[in-house]
Amino acid sequence: MPVDAAPIRAEQMKLLAELTHQIKTSREYESCIKALMKAKGLQPEQEAAVRVFARDFMRQKSLPAAFVQEFTKHTNEATCIWNKAKETNNFRLFMPILKKTIDLMQRKADYIGYKNHPYDALVDEYEPGITTAELDTLFSDLKDEITPLVKGAKKGKALEIKSSLKEQLEVCHNMLEAIGYNFNRGRLDTTSHPFCQGYHPFDIRITCRSAHPSIFTQMLTTLHEAGHAFYEMGLPPEAHGTPLGTYVSLGIHESQSRFWETRIGRSEAFWKFFLPKLKAKFKKDLGKIKLNDFMSGLNFVQPSFIRTDADEVTYPLHVILRYEIEKELLTGELHVKDLPERWNSSMKELLGITPKTDTLGCLQDIHWSVGFYGYFPTYTLGNIYAAQMFEVFSKKFPTWESRVASGDFDFIHTWLSKNIWSHGSRYDAGDLIRKISGKALTAKPYISYLTHKYC
Amino acid sequence: MPVDAAPIRAEQMKLLAELTHQIKTSREYESCIKALMKAKGLQPEQEAAVRVFARDFMRQKSLPAAFVQEFTKHTNEATCIWNKAKETNNFRLFMPILKKTIDLMQRKADYIGYKNHPYDALVDEYEPGITTAELDTLFSDLKDEITPLVKGAKKGKALEIKSSLKEQLEVCHNMLEAIGYNFNRGRLDTTSHPFCQGYHPFDIRITCRSAHPSIFTQMLTTLHEAGHAFYEMGLPPEAHGTPLGTYVSLGIHESQSRFWETRIGRSEAFWKFFLPKLKAKFKKDLGKIKLNDFMSGLNFVQPSFIRTDADEVTYPLHVILRYEIEKELLTGELHVKDLPERWNSSMKELLGITPKTDTLGCLQDIHWSVGFYGYFPTYTLGNIYAAQMFEVFSKKFPTWESRVASGDFDFIHTWLSKNIWSHGSRYDAGDLIRKISGKALTAKPYISYLTHKYC
Repeated sequence: MPVDAAPIRAEQMKLLAELTHQIKTSREYESCIKALMKAKGLQPEQEAAVRVFARDFMRQKSLPAAFVQEFTKHTNEATCIWNKAKETNNFRLFMPILKKTIDLMQRKADYIGYKNHPYDALVDEYEPGITTAELDTLFSDLKDEITPLVKGAKKGKALEIKSSLKEQLEVCHNMLEAIGYNFNRGRLDTTSHPFCQGYHPFDIRITCRSAHPSIFTQMLTTLHEAGHAFYEMGLPPEAHGTPLGTYVSLGIHESQSRFWETRIGRSEAFWKFFLPKLKAKFKKDLGKIKLNDFMSGLNFVQPSFIRTDADEVTYPLHVILRYEIEKELLTGELHVKDLPERWNSSMKELLGITPKTDTLGCLQDIHWSVGFYGYFPTYTLGNIYAAQMFEVFSKKFPTWESRVASGDFDFIHTWLSKNIWSHGSRYDAGDLIRKISGKALTAKPYISYLTHKYC
Repeated sequence: MPVDAAPIRAEQMKLLAELTHQIKTSREYESCIKALMKAKGLQPEQEAAVRVFARDFMRQKSLPAAFVQEFTKHTNEATCIWNKAKETNNFRLFMPILKKTIDLMQRKADYIGYKNHPYDALVDEYEPGITTAELDTLFSDLKDEITPLVKGAKKGKALEIKSSLKEQLEVCHNMLEAIGYNFNRGRLDTTSHPFCQGYHPFDIRITCRSAHPSIFTQMLTTLHEAGHAFYEMGLPPEAHGTPLGTYVSLGIHESQSRFWETRIGRSEAFWKFFLPKLKAKFKKDLGKIKLNDFMSGLNFVQPSFIRTDADEVTYPLHVILRYEIEKELLTGELHVKDLPERWNSSMKELLGITPKTDTLGCLQDIHWSVGFYGYFPTYTLGNIYAAQMFEVFSKKFPTWESRVASGDFDFIHTWLSKNIWSHGSRYDAGDLIRKISGKALTAKPYISYLTHKYC
């Protein structure tokens, strides 16, 4: 989009959001929902759809229009000020803004309501059904097991070869075709931050980085976004626009990207298939490298300040840090003015490093300025779900590695489609994972994966 | 857009169109319009806006929803069948479809209403205020003067040099920057058919051809689309969404593209400035060419079958042919079954050539399949308006050629903005051209331009 186009685009988006909100909180809509809730003889999947319709209606209805407007206005301003504060490493500039955000978040939690913890009301928007108590258990298990690993984990150095953006795009395009991305229903383009954007089930586009990093990072990023895209492409198109054609939660969405990025894309099997192709293309740089050494250059642990650059082991610790801080700010246990100190001491405790600036610390993420409060946990939930799914998958397909190494990816699509994609939001995340694995959500498979791989 | 995305996209567009139609024909909207029409103390520009609001409301209201749905359904099917018919040169396949289209068009004219000719009701959608009687006069003047010119006009051969799409884009990008296209408010991309798409006043994008033709064609195409873009960028942003922030008519829109493409872009002055730049880039192919010879390779007459490939002299004859046929089909004077014969004999009469297939003849344009009936005249009206505007412009700036030759384009923007862009739809096309030139619309300046340039 041209740079000057943003303000009117924002007005257009605001108008559409207001119109949607109007319709979705109207008396007419409410009476439809209520009639459906009382309706008899619905099929189980229809009942599931009504449950989600009703849940979303209650959430929309609970927030007064005046609050939504105040919130939107504040976060618009907050984002500008956060940008400046981050650029100039000036936490004091962001402080009053964040105070106001916390205040708004506390009010939001009260409007929505909660049983045990105000954070329940916030995280529920992104991960319906999960509770703070559950997150506490999952994340403390993780933290206890992972933190001690960091020091002794596999060290390494990222492998780098020279490649142009054009070459990277070509490689990623071919990789996407090989793993079953349907270009009749999507595109691969470049943007400053990679993302997956679905307009409808037959138009799910992905991007990788325009400021091209290493070709291997580019490939893993593309696999991550492809995982998101496969999920959206796999939702039943005939249910488009209803809960049965919609993803379950951000955590389940992230599980699909992590499944492809980490469990497939960071596996030796995957590179048995793709490394020879890269060697043929980049003879000089890669011709002589051994698969073993290549894998060491891909999978290693190196504590760093920025979440989005983190390796597989330290990544969840970045998230847990934010989760704890969000909860404490919300309950008033932590004051905004003490945030930088709290951040830095936790980084030291978890990763053994201390950022020299707030730009590299508590000002690094956009989330708190745009009001995405309760969002961070879904990143790590994605990994936890993915690991629990993968445990079942790899038992079902004990030869998955030789199949992937021979370039067979169809069976992965078939399994994910049957178990996840085709259900839309018929099951809540907790029920879905129980249906797949026969167990409640647990961090064990994820911890086990990280421990075996990196220690 | 990915190829499989079209059907759902069409549903989305249909939904938005229906919602818009609902709002714009609602009682609430009607009572607003009526209140405004009775309001006293409005400023003249407010009165003008109310006049346009009311006119558009009457048109929307006059068409029954059932008719609009039938029309949309038919044209969706018609486009598929037209595509097949064109591909296989099978007019008989398209015949029943076109019969139905004509029937729908006759009903549309009746719904909308007209004083003298049913065609008035159709052309009014694209060129509000113009009448068939006026078009008859303009087009018969043109036809009488231009047809005899074709045979004796300047012949020539298109200049061709080797250039990649990337080089063409670079040249067009630099040209756009030089002539004042604001890339903060737009983009240049490639598509199979070039177009200009405005989303709002700060996001007006243009494209040139992805199947790259000659670099000179590419530059003229880009100038054409830039002319459209300048107009949309020049509309008052504070009036966006109202008639005062909206273009007057398709003919006036086309006048802006033709102004830049033909009167500026095909002038010797323009190439005095740009040819040296091209010579520096394409030394081998262009290094030794003289400006005179270059201009002969750009401006010549060569009758051909396809409207969109036509030169400046034969182009209006292609349009007049369609105009006459549309009128005759609408009144029943011409039967659909006799269309190919009528087409071919007119081509022979006007251009001295006869297409060997209907694919090269009456099946070439998409317009009749999508129901764009009364649209063709606006192409030639664009040239007529542009010529009448240019006559005034060149009198006001007798040294325009030396200014353009030195790379000065700002004064053109200033003049067009003051006289056309800044008014939005405050004046109907007829009033606007009278305000600019002091005269009613006339084909004389256009005929004079073509005659002097090509004979």
